[in-house]
Amino acid sequence: MQEEMILRAVGVVKSPIKEAIPVPEGENGVGESYRKRLRSYFKEVKEIISWVEIFPELEGILEGIEEFSHIFVIYWPHLLQMGPIEEYMVHPMGRKDIPKKGIFATLSPRRPNPILISPVRLVGVKGNSLKVQGLDALDGSIVLDIKPYVPHYHRISDSSSPRWIKELREDVE
Amino acid sequence: MQEEMILRAVGVVKSPIKEAIPVPEGENGVGESYRKRLRSYFKEVKEIISWVEIFPELEGILEGIEEFSHIFVIYWPHLLQMGPIEEYMVHPMGRKDIPKKGIFATLSPRRPNPILISPVRLVGVKGNSLKVQGLDALDGSIVLDIKPYVPHYHRISDSSSPRWIKELREDVE
Repeated sequence: MQEEMILRAVGVVKSPIKEAIPVPEGENGVGESYRKRLRSYFKEVKEIISWVEIFPELEGILEGIEEFSHIFVIYWPHLLQMGPIEEYMVHPMGRKDIPKKGIFATLSPRRPNPILISPVRLVGVKGNSLKVQGLDALDGSIVLDIKPYVPHYHRISDSSSPRWIKELREDVE
Repeated sequence: MQEEMILRAVGVVKSPIKEAIPVPEGENGVGESYRKRLRSYFKEVKEIISWVEIFPELEGILEGIEEFSHIFVIYWPHLLQMGPIEEYMVHPMGRKDIPKKGIFATLSPRRPNPILISPVRLVGVKGNSLKVQGLDALDGSIVLDIKPYVPHYHRISDSSSPRWIKELREDVE
């Protein structure tokens, strides 16, 4: 089997988000001040407008994308510390009050291949740049791929998730 | 900017699908015999059971994943011809009766970084193997990542897509 695969940048994210998501302090549970910070972070990200700039040499590669309401931005977290992973289980979102889960059961950016995938609203297209809403990528993130969000393929109406992942969200809404 | 990023296999797909999706013959439109072949292909893939085997050295990485009904399998199409792409616009699914679209407006496997992403039903977990339904990856595909399908994040209820992508599907149902 092929052991290594090489990716090349196809573009870059321009975003007002300059810093990573806040991580909780303290060993047990999270306090109201952390919840407050996280709540405002998520609220902000949901509304935030970013630009995904595709390199102009990929001529024509965005043709027709404006017909989709949503797309996936597939990107590489350029600021993430990349050393080998020592443990394959993590507290979801650093929350020590939630038992550890396998990395593949979470959306943690720190994973064997840090390919991050964000579904976002496509607000507009201008030349080789995509204007998107709700992208959680940091400014300067390396774009690897763009895919259309195809409702009959990607929208799974009977999908369900565990209680802890709902709690992570309810905490901040 | 970092120009190259390296991925490493985290597992392999075991699937009864040994051959790529059929491509249409002829220059204009597609005949009923092609539609028939495609229809039976899609019907088959939707029901098909595959195994995603994660390398055992990634101990614990699947912990808790059984609590999700659906997951994304992120994989590398090991049989795809990988040379440089000469044109960034393609006829969707090789259908010459549909005008060319940019690769990023399609789910074509032949793209600058061939990272393929399939949402599938998680039927069960056995040790370090995931039993999934509906995976369109060929047998031997290289697994890069697994992510949970998180309904409040991935299920976009107000998403819409162009007519041509609906037609591609209606043709085969």
